[in-house]
Amino acid sequence: MSDRTVFFVSDGTGITAETFGNAILAQFDFKPRRVRLPFIDTPDKAHQALRQINHTAEVEGKKPLVFTTLVDRQALAIIQGSKGMLLDMFGTFVQPMETELGIKSHHRVGRFSDVSKSREYHDRIEAINYSLAHDDGQSNRDLTAADVILIGVSRSGKTPTSLYLAMQHGLKAANYPLIPEDFDRRQLPPALVPHKKKLFGLTIAPERLSEIRSERRPDSRYADLQNCRAEVAEAEAMMRRAGIRWLSTTTKSIEEIATTILQEVRPERLSY
Amino acid sequence: MSDRTVFFVSDGTGITAETFGNAILAQFDFKPRRVRLPFIDTPDKAHQALRQINHTAEVEGKKPLVFTTLVDRQALAIIQGSKGMLLDMFGTFVQPMETELGIKSHHRVGRFSDVSKSREYHDRIEAINYSLAHDDGQSNRDLTAADVILIGVSRSGKTPTSLYLAMQHGLKAANYPLIPEDFDRRQLPPALVPHKKKLFGLTIAPERLSEIRSERRPDSRYADLQNCRAEVAEAEAMMRRAGIRWLSTTTKSIEEIATTILQEVRPERLSY
Repeated sequence: MSDRTVFFVSDGTGITAETFGNAILAQFDFKPRRVRLPFIDTPDKAHQALRQINHTAEVEGKKPLVFTTLVDRQALAIIQGSKGMLLDMFGTFVQPMETELGIKSHHRVGRFSDVSKSREYHDRIEAINYSLAHDDGQSNRDLTAADVILIGVSRSGKTPTSLYLAMQHGLKAANYPLIPEDFDRRQLPPALVPHKKKLFGLTIAPERLSEIRSERRPDSRYADLQNCRAEVAEAEAMMRRAGIRWLSTTTKSIEEIATTILQEVRPERLSY
Repeated sequence: MSDRTVFFVSDGTGITAETFGNAILAQFDFKPRRVRLPFIDTPDKAHQALRQINHTAEVEGKKPLVFTTLVDRQALAIIQGSKGMLLDMFGTFVQPMETELGIKSHHRVGRFSDVSKSREYHDRIEAINYSLAHDDGQSNRDLTAADVILIGVSRSGKTPTSLYLAMQHGLKAANYPLIPEDFDRRQLPPALVPHKKKLFGLTIAPERLSEIRSERRPDSRYADLQNCRAEVAEAEAMMRRAGIRWLSTTTKSIEEIATTILQEVRPERLSY
């Protein structure tokens, strides 16, 4: 199927090179073979990567695409000599920025270097632990420390979204299910009332919810479409009454849900 | 402190624009004010973004940096008229790739559009649920389904790494603690023995481990440096005897740990 190879070459994890390359590849209808070459941080490793790229070029008879975020000048110079088509993120944008800013770049490798000792990284790990401990209403303790509290019926997308907010944005994201008992009382779970400003609701189309629940518990009342319709209607009515912001997750990815939450809730602790 | 603003402008979540921009900004010693402008997917919103950028340029008397991954030609043309310095990822790289590949790009917005219905997305959510259910040895069931099983002493970094592997790479990553009982028996936990090929060990410097554990339980035997030294030595000896690959997480970020695991374990299910 694929007669063209794409390399992602980086002195670090290669996450930026892959994000960069995959975004551009997504603009084309072709499925290349993908090869990650992370941690290319010595001339030796760069020469090894060069040989691999050149070998591929010869075997396939086509220029491999080489997305690189190499910062090290020596390693980059070696890869520049390859038979691939170089798509060089830093080389392209850093120099014009030096001119505009009037300062030199420092050619330092990797946003993650020594990150494990930083305050920011520490807070991020704390946020992951917090979100895990406050998944699915497991604990009402320390809800004051939460940056955001997601609410919604079971399987509306709360858990993956909370973990994503913690992992990617370092937010302490608790989540709390809305259950039939809450609907009977026609009131928010009492533990949440003091934290209304931090609440954000997730809802979902009943048809989709029924599909998702059926994968877990086929032919159950839990997954039944009529029941899903009733739960979703109750949850939406409750959020509307309480004046809580909410969105539908039906056709959205975790990333899209998280981005919308950040825009709406604007948690104080977020760096920007 | 900061007299220069950086905008991240995207028709989608802006995650690519931020990854791109932050990687380049990390090459400079300056701390700009950052503004996310996601979901700029209509001419109206583009004009609104344009006004915000131009207003900032006037107030600050300096060109704002504008990192963009806009795909929509109309929206991009509007932003190109701004008073900012445009760093345009697609504009820069897509056209040379069209030439090399001999095909046209389709200018489609966002890698996440409609992703929520895709098989890949479904598998990723499944992986997150799996990793949560198999955190900290909670369940021995379905370990056959695991793509990778992380082992190590308590607080060596297993949980965040497992969740990251699930979230970012769609891998079913279980994790299993090595505890004093295992050391007394001088054997791997029996549940893990059939899955030796999928095991990967995390270790950590005892000094760092003691610090981390002290945050949770100060002045405990659990956090005591001598005890941490003994546990780490036992765990490393066990992994060495069993021929299990491992790395030290002491100075590494989750991303670096995950990248190394992917390189070493090369799980079959991984797309590449």
